[in-house]
Amino acid sequence: MDDKIMRQIEALAKSTRLASYQIAKASTEEKNNILKKIISGLEDSRSKILEANKVDLLSIEKKNLNNAFIERMTLDEKKINQMKQNIEDVILLDDPVGKREVLSKRPNGLSVYKQSIPLGVISIIYESRPNVTSDAAVLCLKSGNATILRGGSECFNTNLCIIEIIKNALTESGFDSNSINMIPITDREALKFILTLDEYIDLVIPRGGESLIRFISNFSRIPVIKHYKGVCHVYIDEFADIQKAIEIAVNSKVQRPGVCNSMETLLVHEKVASETLPKLFKMLESKKVKVHADNKIKEIANNENIIQVAEDDWCREYLDLEMNIKIVNNIDDAINHIEKYGSLHTESIVTDNKESAEYFINSVNSSAIMHNASTRFNDGNELGLGAEIGISTTKLHAFGPMGLNELTTKKFVILGEGQIKQNA
Amino acid sequence: MDDKIMRQIEALAKSTRLASYQIAKASTEEKNNILKKIISGLEDSRSKILEANKVDLLSIEKKNLNNAFIERMTLDEKKINQMKQNIEDVILLDDPVGKREVLSKRPNGLSVYKQSIPLGVISIIYESRPNVTSDAAVLCLKSGNATILRGGSECFNTNLCIIEIIKNALTESGFDSNSINMIPITDREALKFILTLDEYIDLVIPRGGESLIRFISNFSRIPVIKHYKGVCHVYIDEFADIQKAIEIAVNSKVQRPGVCNSMETLLVHEKVASETLPKLFKMLESKKVKVHADNKIKEIANNENIIQVAEDDWCREYLDLEMNIKIVNNIDDAINHIEKYGSLHTESIVTDNKESAEYFINSVNSSAIMHNASTRFNDGNELGLGAEIGISTTKLHAFGPMGLNELTTKKFVILGEGQIKQNA
Repeated sequence: MDDKIMRQIEALAKSTRLASYQIAKASTEEKNNILKKIISGLEDSRSKILEANKVDLLSIEKKNLNNAFIERMTLDEKKINQMKQNIEDVILLDDPVGKREVLSKRPNGLSVYKQSIPLGVISIIYESRPNVTSDAAVLCLKSGNATILRGGSECFNTNLCIIEIIKNALTESGFDSNSINMIPITDREALKFILTLDEYIDLVIPRGGESLIRFISNFSRIPVIKHYKGVCHVYIDEFADIQKAIEIAVNSKVQRPGVCNSMETLLVHEKVASETLPKLFKMLESKKVKVHADNKIKEIANNENIIQVAEDDWCREYLDLEMNIKIVNNIDDAINHIEKYGSLHTESIVTDNKESAEYFINSVNSSAIMHNASTRFNDGNELGLGAEIGISTTKLHAFGPMGLNELTTKKFVILGEGQIKQNA
Repeated sequence: MDDKIMRQIEALAKSTRLASYQIAKASTEEKNNILKKIISGLEDSRSKILEANKVDLLSIEKKNLNNAFIERMTLDEKKINQMKQNIEDVILLDDPVGKREVLSKRPNGLSVYKQSIPLGVISIIYESRPNVTSDAAVLCLKSGNATILRGGSECFNTNLCIIEIIKNALTESGFDSNSINMIPITDREALKFILTLDEYIDLVIPRGGESLIRFISNFSRIPVIKHYKGVCHVYIDEFADIQKAIEIAVNSKVQRPGVCNSMETLLVHEKVASETLPKLFKMLESKKVKVHADNKIKEIANNENIIQVAEDDWCREYLDLEMNIKIVNNIDDAINHIEKYGSLHTESIVTDNKESAEYFINSVNSSAIMHNASTRFNDGNELGLGAEIGISTTKLHAFGPMGLNELTTKKFVILGEGQIKQNA
């Protein structure tokens, strides 16, 4: 990458940092007004956005991309409506900035508080969905952050069009339009360079496949909040209500198998295996779920379609109608299995025994632990955080779904009456 | 670095990860018992520790290290007493693990909580002070974390001796002694390798000079919580009580100039400059403080000893009896100066005007903002957090002094009665 491009990227990052001081001080009303202007901008520019999207779709025609990819990058009236609706929802959310909580009154009379503030500049690095441009930018704005977006090359024109709408909304509201910027270069060398700009960027959130995320994680000097994959478990305890357990396990797998909070491995206590498995297999077969398991399970289930499980399977995120099943001797075996093979995402215990539930909850330190509920509920909306900007399996700062509050941090505020430190 | 050493370091990191699951589940009583055993271990091994320290001191004799360095690495009876006292203090602190707070009850009946958990495995990378070995390990243990320590080569024997005492305390209490480990290799290549082990280590906390911290920050794939330096400001507002202001400014600089929360730059509102500066200079001269400033200040102060300030000086952390002074036109100029040159550490406003104070507090987003108090109070003990493991100017996870709570994170706990996710 030549020097000129590096200087351009650096200048853009610096102008975002400067703009971040202004947006950080914006009142709730000012921020909501910007969001309203983005909604009207999207409405007024419908045809422009769809045209830009057509240009992008034309340019990838020769690339032989798969249908799922093309589906993700295609916008239509319905998706634009959804983008608008998402902004309406964010307007209704509480402003996460400026909350001051009392920590303590010190013996010398100092009053100590913590006060929530924006993180500063957040960089979102994502792949094909152009609606992320609007969804992510709006969450960052509402939390008082400036944003540097780097979308995928395939959606370049669509993203540019949406960014212009957001920039106009900022300018019309009397704010520096550099509170949102897009890095117009999409190659990996440029990405590497962005990841060194820790002076101007406070946080990187990658959204995309595991290889993009690993690349970012390996090269970033800026803190990264991420999750590589979701290898989620359901454990059916010896004291489980079997009917409930089967429903939760099946729902955790099949309700939407292509997402990170779907179950990959079911662990069944040996005492309830022979009662559970035949019924379970009937359900799974009707849903066309492939099962990997060992001979012991094959015998109980008396099912020839079971695939012999391999050691690597326990770490796999199938993202499909496919899963592992294992019989465990006791609750500790289940916990040990999750510690060894899990990805710190979501685990659920099904049991009617309160002690087993508490033991499991207190022992397993994944981002979300469910008791008698489907793993599919680990999601910002379902847990009441409102829209989420991503999900974290990194334990630092945010663990689990990241809502508006997770886009802020807390500073100490200390109020005195002239206190000075005495020599010890 | 050869493969064998890499495999050894990796095996050590892996064994620490495995041990972390056990210490994470330890009760408050169990953890306090381990700490008590460490105290008796330190008492019983006084002579052994001092002998090991002598060996270290002998081995550096030819290295021509400065006195401050040698002073930091030298242990004596008093410092061992202090290490013991620090552990006594940590025993009295609340256990930060296992606190469950209600978040919400969802319309589908799910109860959502957040529960504090240990981070997992923390690596502390530090330089010459061997008392950090005990201080840091004990804070990590109390918060249920396993720890990988890498101290400086100069204190190798002393550190090893202290680690053995902690390991014995773990073993005697029925815990895996791998909850604390020391990387026995101190070169930078080994350090680089440690920083790639994100599978086994959750957080790196470097403690030392800026060059060590930058090295770690540049090479780490593991989240790092750090601060490079403290360029702290005091701003004397137009509505300040001048006597109070001078006392706070002088205290912020001279009470202990070699630490990160001492003031480096004083900003004075032009309306009070001519009243403030002559008195201030008298005080600073009596304390032998060198001042960097521009001609305007020289005229007001009528002082020949003032050094002409250079642009770079505004970013300097003098760590000495040396400072900058600048006259600003108004409070916004002061805020802009801090945004441009500050290090996000500690800033103080001196004013009797409540609006100015609130405006400054809400506009400046450093880790600690003081009103009418010395910058020297930005410290875990002074702010009531108890012992601190370090101070962070990275906004992620912890911002400001890091106490026991900052060594934990929060998982979601969701209690249901069989809820499954319905198709949309």
